[in-house]
Amino acid sequence: MSCQLSLNLRLKDGSSFSNFLAGPNREVLERLRTAVVTATTREKASEPMMYLWGAEGSGKTHLLQAACRLAQELGIAPVYVPLADVVELTPSLLEGVETAPLVCLDDVERAAGRKEWETALFSLVERLRAVGGMLVIGAIAPPDRLGLKLPDLVSRLAWGTGYALQPLDDVQKLEAVRLRAQHRGFEMPEDVARYILSRYPRDLPSLFDLLDRIDQASLTQQRRVTIPFLRRLEELGRENVETV
Amino acid sequence: MSCQLSLNLRLKDGSSFSNFLAGPNREVLERLRTAVVTATTREKASEPMMYLWGAEGSGKTHLLQAACRLAQELGIAPVYVPLADVVELTPSLLEGVETAPLVCLDDVERAAGRKEWETALFSLVERLRAVGGMLVIGAIAPPDRLGLKLPDLVSRLAWGTGYALQPLDDVQKLEAVRLRAQHRGFEMPEDVARYILSRYPRDLPSLFDLLDRIDQASLTQQRRVTIPFLRRLEELGRENVETV
Repeated sequence: MSCQLSLNLRLKDGSSFSNFLAGPNREVLERLRTAVVTATTREKASEPMMYLWGAEGSGKTHLLQAACRLAQELGIAPVYVPLADVVELTPSLLEGVETAPLVCLDDVERAAGRKEWETALFSLVERLRAVGGMLVIGAIAPPDRLGLKLPDLVSRLAWGTGYALQPLDDVQKLEAVRLRAQHRGFEMPEDVARYILSRYPRDLPSLFDLLDRIDQASLTQQRRVTIPFLRRLEELGRENVETV
Repeated sequence: MSCQLSLNLRLKDGSSFSNFLAGPNREVLERLRTAVVTATTREKASEPMMYLWGAEGSGKTHLLQAACRLAQELGIAPVYVPLADVVELTPSLLEGVETAPLVCLDDVERAAGRKEWETALFSLVERLRAVGGMLVIGAIAPPDRLGLKLPDLVSRLAWGTGYALQPLDDVQKLEAVRLRAQHRGFEMPEDVARYILSRYPRDLPSLFDLLDRIDQASLTQQRRVTIPFLRRLEELGRENVETV
């Protein structure tokens, strides 16, 4: 099934609860984790529906993927559906999804104004409720501010407990980058993290992409991550662009 | 602390419950997982001490690390102590370890005949029991066949529920290699897995090392993993050896 496929693809980079720098979002993390444990180890989730919203880079996708990862570790097969990636496809891929004990729907704002998708989401929420599965939603704003056309879908989404994710400040972003590096198995000295924050876009998705590239380069070249190493990487980046 | 350090180092390669091909060891996996969940989410573990034994490559280290990983995801800091790596150091590194809700001691046979280590392990088992922490042991044989000199240590280790890990057969090894590849984010076609099993040592630690090298090479060279790709990798390996 397509959404299973995207689950595998997107979990690759290793978003988990233990590499999430919670900062101001500690309570959301704890509640989500507890709900996933109860949903997978007992009959019912402590919270059958959680609605996480916040700006780009506030950690929604990370938390949804961490929930899926934990569920997998606990022995169940969750479903992760990133609407940003699948909304051009037919919503029939949501058929039967409710048999999973945990369903995570990400980028739900992308359904707005697409009648077939809005109807399909409404139906999925109903089916999940009927079978007692757990649903976690990630979206850019509260249900009534997504631009959805189907009032019933808005009201169903509002059933879930809503959590507003707070963005990290610069000190926390620095910690988040270093935590992520540590979980990938390399140490990022504080001066390197500061250097990165001072020179690159400070949104976390870009920072984590950069971390990927650094990790890959450091593995291939068998070099420690230092400021001179980063400078060399930047030069190489420029040379590659120029020769294209 | 040294053992925390080794925890980070050794968990890097990503041993988890979801990439463990259980085969004949399904029951051990389920019991360990349940015990870790109860130890971290409630007051007491369902099994305060589990003793996993089996030959090299039967999955002890994988399961101990999976237990630590799950505990981390559940928000606690476990301790993983691979005696093979630390037995040349002072056993005083075990001091205070019982404050962790989960302690995993691997390669326990390596303590045999080292009086200071045997005494330190005995003391740790007692302390863990007193505070109600969970202990998971990995060893090559049952407690009375490790060659331990301290009878009290043998009897304490025998308190734990013992689980004999069964080695995988060739079909299961093939599945294990493909499962591991899938979790690393690449597909290994069945013919490639068969090719590997027919040409390389069939113990799982060697096979997983090989998988690391293949993954790295396929990422660096941006190529899909096929039999011709593997042949080229073998040729390069030989050339490198010849030029050394």
